[in-house]
Amino acid sequence: MKRFDFEEERIKQEIAKLGAKRVLLQLPEGLKPDAPRLARLIEKAGALPIVSADPCYGACDLATSMAEDLDADLLIHYGHAKLLKHEKVPTLYLEARATMKVDGAVEKAVPLLSAYKTVGLATTVQHVQTLDDVREMLVRAGKTVVVGDARRLPYGGQVIGCDFGNVKSISSEVEAFLFVGGGKFHALGVALATGKPTVVADPYDQTAYSVDLEAQKILKQRWASIQEAAKAKVLGVLVSLKPGQKHLEEALRIKAKIEKMDRTAVLFALKEVLPEALMEFPSVDAYVNTACPRISLDDASKFKKPVLTMQEFNVVSGEYSWESLLKNGLFEK
Amino acid sequence: MKRFDFEEERIKQEIAKLGAKRVLLQLPEGLKPDAPRLARLIEKAGALPIVSADPCYGACDLATSMAEDLDADLLIHYGHAKLLKHEKVPTLYLEARATMKVDGAVEKAVPLLSAYKTVGLATTVQHVQTLDDVREMLVRAGKTVVVGDARRLPYGGQVIGCDFGNVKSISSEVEAFLFVGGGKFHALGVALATGKPTVVADPYDQTAYSVDLEAQKILKQRWASIQEAAKAKVLGVLVSLKPGQKHLEEALRIKAKIEKMDRTAVLFALKEVLPEALMEFPSVDAYVNTACPRISLDDASKFKKPVLTMQEFNVVSGEYSWESLLKNGLFEK
Repeated sequence: MKRFDFEEERIKQEIAKLGAKRVLLQLPEGLKPDAPRLARLIEKAGALPIVSADPCYGACDLATSMAEDLDADLLIHYGHAKLLKHEKVPTLYLEARATMKVDGAVEKAVPLLSAYKTVGLATTVQHVQTLDDVREMLVRAGKTVVVGDARRLPYGGQVIGCDFGNVKSISSEVEAFLFVGGGKFHALGVALATGKPTVVADPYDQTAYSVDLEAQKILKQRWASIQEAAKAKVLGVLVSLKPGQKHLEEALRIKAKIEKMDRTAVLFALKEVLPEALMEFPSVDAYVNTACPRISLDDASKFKKPVLTMQEFNVVSGEYSWESLLKNGLFEK
Repeated sequence: MKRFDFEEERIKQEIAKLGAKRVLLQLPEGLKPDAPRLARLIEKAGALPIVSADPCYGACDLATSMAEDLDADLLIHYGHAKLLKHEKVPTLYLEARATMKVDGAVEKAVPLLSAYKTVGLATTVQHVQTLDDVREMLVRAGKTVVVGDARRLPYGGQVIGCDFGNVKSISSEVEAFLFVGGGKFHALGVALATGKPTVVADPYDQTAYSVDLEAQKILKQRWASIQEAAKAKVLGVLVSLKPGQKHLEEALRIKAKIEKMDRTAVLFALKEVLPEALMEFPSVDAYVNTACPRISLDDASKFKKPVLTMQEFNVVSGEYSWESLLKNGLFEK
């Protein structure tokens, strides 16, 4: 049995409905191995399939430019819910809901939540359909369960790498969070955005663990990066070209602030914010990253220079204190 | 003294002439450290500078999409001569001619050419201005010197990573080639495109050496890759989005040929052909690369699967023999 629902029927329906002749298929890294199989399905439905082999980590990274460049008349984007308000190319979002059960992992998580009475829930779009069951399991274990909905994302309790509004909206009501999903990435986001103890129930590995120590490590590292960036004479401001990560106006405002501080600012545009790309500019002392804020937080050890989020830069510019940054969030708007 | 002529005056003149308000600055890796300095110069000339931090290895990779995306009204491209016939954004090519002398390296190269009477010259745009001097030095050493001009590139004797027409046009007249320039990349191209002994005179390191053994190694590796690709059941066809590397029509023709051979073909589009990108598709047995052919030849050891050039695919499809491929060229059109 497949681990995800690829909704193959909807592909055929959409191609027929639009009369699409050329389809660009975009999948996040974990789903890419299925691309050749899905390409054959698209071809059988009467359209030419082209698979994007570029990395993709979110619906912010929608391959609209590539679709335009290849004259595709339909873009099929797997693994993320809709994020951008408008797409320049007709786009079918297929969320790739996970088919595996989460019970085993949640059972293992319960003992790790023993110190807390009120627990908030969080998950990715792959597992939003399990939240009712998870809630019941926790209620049976004697917990009061809260699921937040800040109305910015399609589903209550859902989090994405850069938007933790749903958990922040209930953070003051709960003592801890349970994140249901794979890996540490989203769970760390919950812990960093709320400052609350956070436990992962990973249905892929059928494991449960706390991410609190790792979140503390990241916070210490961020403080060190901010201190180092405060001494920088030349600051680079990074502008992404990804449609949901392009913040040129913010970058221009940050450039003006840097210059008011009598430092030098250089704007850099790039498709992927990679450590190797920044190593080409040895005279730049630190960077402010207006692209995906998680690049700053999660990849810090790979960068040779500090790469601050826009919010972290506010500490360097003197607009925020470190304490108010922690309260407002290191990386969210 | 700077190692390259950055032609700063022409930047100011072009900004003034066009009344440019926003300038995208693109440099190849070796010149990127100068970007912050050049950005300040652009700013002083009255325009907002944005530096492309994406990798750039040729004028085929002109950042026109980025310039359009950022509403730049001028693109300044360093380090390569004009290649594309039309640019969608006004473009100033600054070739970054090297200022260092080449005599020392050429002197060291002369003994390595002792077995040959007639020698062809090749170089990159950085050193084309030295060819007359190099010719004289070789003539004084008793050589007959030939410089080819196939009229595809701006300068006689010039080579670029994927076009060795100038050396091929004189290959039958000479016994060996002397390449003047840095590193092995272009010299290997000369050796592979002509099959002639090739010596590098590197003015950066002031060294001289033969690349023949390495060229032989690459040929053996290519033969092995072709043999392996011939057994592939699923072949990926890679399409680049770089303006001078985008060959979608050729990719479609190759896809049709693969299907005629009763194999499966999957089209993949990508900005950078990176080993990590291809590792996401374990069910693909081999690739045909319609982007920069040098990726296939020079990075072969980094890829887990064979990545053939378009010409090499002709051996798999049975249109060419290995011998006629060697004669026609592994990677050139």
